[in-house]
Amino acid sequence: MPAVSALAVPSARAPFERIEIERREPGPHDVVIDIAFAGICHSDIHTARDEWGAAHYPLVPGHEIAGVVSAIGSEVTRFSVGDHAGVGCFVDSCRECENCLDGEEQYCLRGGLYTYNTPRPEGDPEGGWTQGGYAKQIVVDENYTLRIPDALPLDKAAPLMCAGITLYSPLKHWGAGPGVKVGILGMGGLGHMGVKIAAALGAEVTVLGHSLSKKDDGIRFGATRYLATNDPETFRELKRGLDLIICTVGSDLDFDRILRLLKRDGTLVNVGLPENPMSLRASSLTAQRISFAGSNIGGIRETQEMLDFCAERGITPEIELITADQVGEAWDRVVASDVRYRFVIDTATI
Amino acid sequence: MPAVSALAVPSARAPFERIEIERREPGPHDVVIDIAFAGICHSDIHTARDEWGAAHYPLVPGHEIAGVVSAIGSEVTRFSVGDHAGVGCFVDSCRECENCLDGEEQYCLRGGLYTYNTPRPEGDPEGGWTQGGYAKQIVVDENYTLRIPDALPLDKAAPLMCAGITLYSPLKHWGAGPGVKVGILGMGGLGHMGVKIAAALGAEVTVLGHSLSKKDDGIRFGATRYLATNDPETFRELKRGLDLIICTVGSDLDFDRILRLLKRDGTLVNVGLPENPMSLRASSLTAQRISFAGSNIGGIRETQEMLDFCAERGITPEIELITADQVGEAWDRVVASDVRYRFVIDTATI
Repeated sequence: MPAVSALAVPSARAPFERIEIERREPGPHDVVIDIAFAGICHSDIHTARDEWGAAHYPLVPGHEIAGVVSAIGSEVTRFSVGDHAGVGCFVDSCRECENCLDGEEQYCLRGGLYTYNTPRPEGDPEGGWTQGGYAKQIVVDENYTLRIPDALPLDKAAPLMCAGITLYSPLKHWGAGPGVKVGILGMGGLGHMGVKIAAALGAEVTVLGHSLSKKDDGIRFGATRYLATNDPETFRELKRGLDLIICTVGSDLDFDRILRLLKRDGTLVNVGLPENPMSLRASSLTAQRISFAGSNIGGIRETQEMLDFCAERGITPEIELITADQVGEAWDRVVASDVRYRFVIDTATI
Repeated sequence: MPAVSALAVPSARAPFERIEIERREPGPHDVVIDIAFAGICHSDIHTARDEWGAAHYPLVPGHEIAGVVSAIGSEVTRFSVGDHAGVGCFVDSCRECENCLDGEEQYCLRGGLYTYNTPRPEGDPEGGWTQGGYAKQIVVDENYTLRIPDALPLDKAAPLMCAGITLYSPLKHWGAGPGVKVGILGMGGLGHMGVKIAAALGAEVTVLGHSLSKKDDGIRFGATRYLATNDPETFRELKRGLDLIICTVGSDLDFDRILRLLKRDGTLVNVGLPENPMSLRASSLTAQRISFAGSNIGGIRETQEMLDFCAERGITPEIELITADQVGEAWDRVVASDVRYRFVIDTATI
C-alpha cells in the first residue's frame, strides 16, 4: 500500500506532526487523487481536539479536498488521469438505504463513511480509520468523487466541498430564489458562501452579522442589507421580514428573538452545531407557523450541481492560502473567528 | 345593549359565578348567535387562572361555540335566522395585513381579536374586553362566523371550532394523506381529533400515548398502531419511521428522543403550548434534515373547510355533556387529563 505524507494531530492537545499514512491500492472503481489543496473547516478542529468525542489518533483532518486524478481503477468511467477532482465530507455510504437510493447519501441511515476519523466497516480492504485531506494523496471510489470544473481554481474549489454545499443545499431545498427574502446569520466561512450563493440564486439577501465590521464585504458578496445583531434596532427593522434564515453560528443564540424576524411559514435552518442544547419557546413557532430546521452538507449529486453552478456563475470563496507550518496558527485564528473567510492549505508544503 | 347570562371567573382562583354581560346591538354585518353548546379547552383554564398572564376579570371563557342564528344585521348575506353557526378562537382581525388577506387570519400581524380576554381596539362600538362562549348569546361579524352543516350535531360541533381546526390545519398544511405516516403524540382532546382527521385524510396513523390505557379507543378512532412512550421499545420500533408528528402534549418532553422517530425531511409540529422553553440539540435536526414547527388553529376559510369535511365524513369528537354547575369540576378533570375526550357545556343550564 502506498505511503502518503500527511499532517496529523497526535492527541487532543498536541501540535501537528508530519506522518506517513497508508492509502489503499486503487480498486476497480477507485480514483487516486493527488491532493493540491485542503480547506480548514471548524469541524476539523472540534473533531481533532476531541470536543465532539470519539477522536482516534493520530488523526489526519480535512474534508475540503481538491486535486488532480493521478490514477484510476480498471472500471472507472467517470474520471480520467489529469482530471480535477474533489472530495467532501464523506467517502462512502451504504448505498442501500432509502436516503442513499434517493441520492441523499449525507443522510445515510447506516451512518455513511466520513472522510476522516471514522472506522471503516468490517470487510473493507483498506481497514482502520479514515484519514482526511491534510495529506498529499487520497483514494476514493469514483461514485463519491466530485468533478471540479476547469473554471474553478483548485485552491478556491476546496472549501466548496463542505462550506459551499452546506449552504447551497438548504438554500435550494427551502426555495431561495427571486422574491424570497433570505437572512444569513453569521458571515464566516459558511456564511460568506451563503451570501454569494443566495444572491446568485436571485434571492434578496440580508446578512445578520454580530457587528457591522464585515458590512462592506457582505455588500460586495451580494447582500442588499447588512445588519448587526448587537443593535436592538435590527430586530425592530426586520421584524417578520424574512422568509428563510440560514443560521451558520455555532454559539448559543436567543432563538426566540431571531424567530421573530421570520414571516408566516418562514424557516430557520441550522447548519452550525452548537455544543449546548438549543432553547426556544413553543409560541415562537406557533405564532406564525414557523419551522426550525437543520441541514447537513449535501449528497453527491447535489454537490456536483453546486460545483457546476459555482463554476458557471463565477462563485468562489474568499480564501487565505497557507503552508503546512501555518496550520496550527490558522486553527487558533478559526477558533477566534479571525479569518476572511477560509484557510486553505497548500498541501505541496506538507 | 342586550344583557346575556354567562358563566364567569371572577379572579384567578375563585369559583365560577353566573353574571350578566352585555353584547353589542348587531351592526349591519353582525350575526346574533343563541349559543347552545360551548366546549372546554385547556386554554380556557390557562387563561382564566392567569397562567399565561394578562387575565382581565370577570372573565367569560369559551372559544368552541355552537348555536343557532337568532338575528342578523341588515347587510348580512351569508347567514339567515335559524342557521346553525359556530365561533372559534377569534372574532375579528385587522383584515389588512398580508396574513389576513391570505385568509390566514389566525396569524394576523396586528394580533387579531380573540374570542375572550382581549381588549377591543379603539373605536370598536362594543368596547371593553371580549367575553367568550360560556354564555347564552354572542354577536359576531358574519365574516368571522362559521356555518355548521346540518349533518353535525351542535353539541359535537362545538369542539371542532378549536380542537378540530388545531389538528386539521397542520395535517393539511404538512400533507397528511395516503402514503404518509403520521404520529399523533398525546391522545387527549386535541390528539383524538388528530387521529380521526388524519385517518380520514388517508394517512397511516400511529398514536404515541403515554401508556396503552387508551389503545382500544385509538384503534377505534382510526389508528393502525398505538404505542406507549413510557416503553423504550417504542423508540426502537419506530426509529426513523414517521413522516409527520403532531405533538399535542403541553408538558415538558425529550424532543431529541422524539425527533429520532422522524424520517429524513420529517416534521414535528407543536400545537400544544408548554409553559417552559423547549430544549433540543441541533444535531437532532441536522441529522436527517428534520423540521421542528408550530401551528396555531386555522383561518376562517380553512375552519369552514374542516367543518364541511367532518360533516361529509361523519367525524365528530367524543364528548361528555355537562351542565353549568359541573364546569368547575370539569376543569379540574381537564387538568388531571381525566376526560374522554372533550367536555361540552349545555349552555341552556347557565
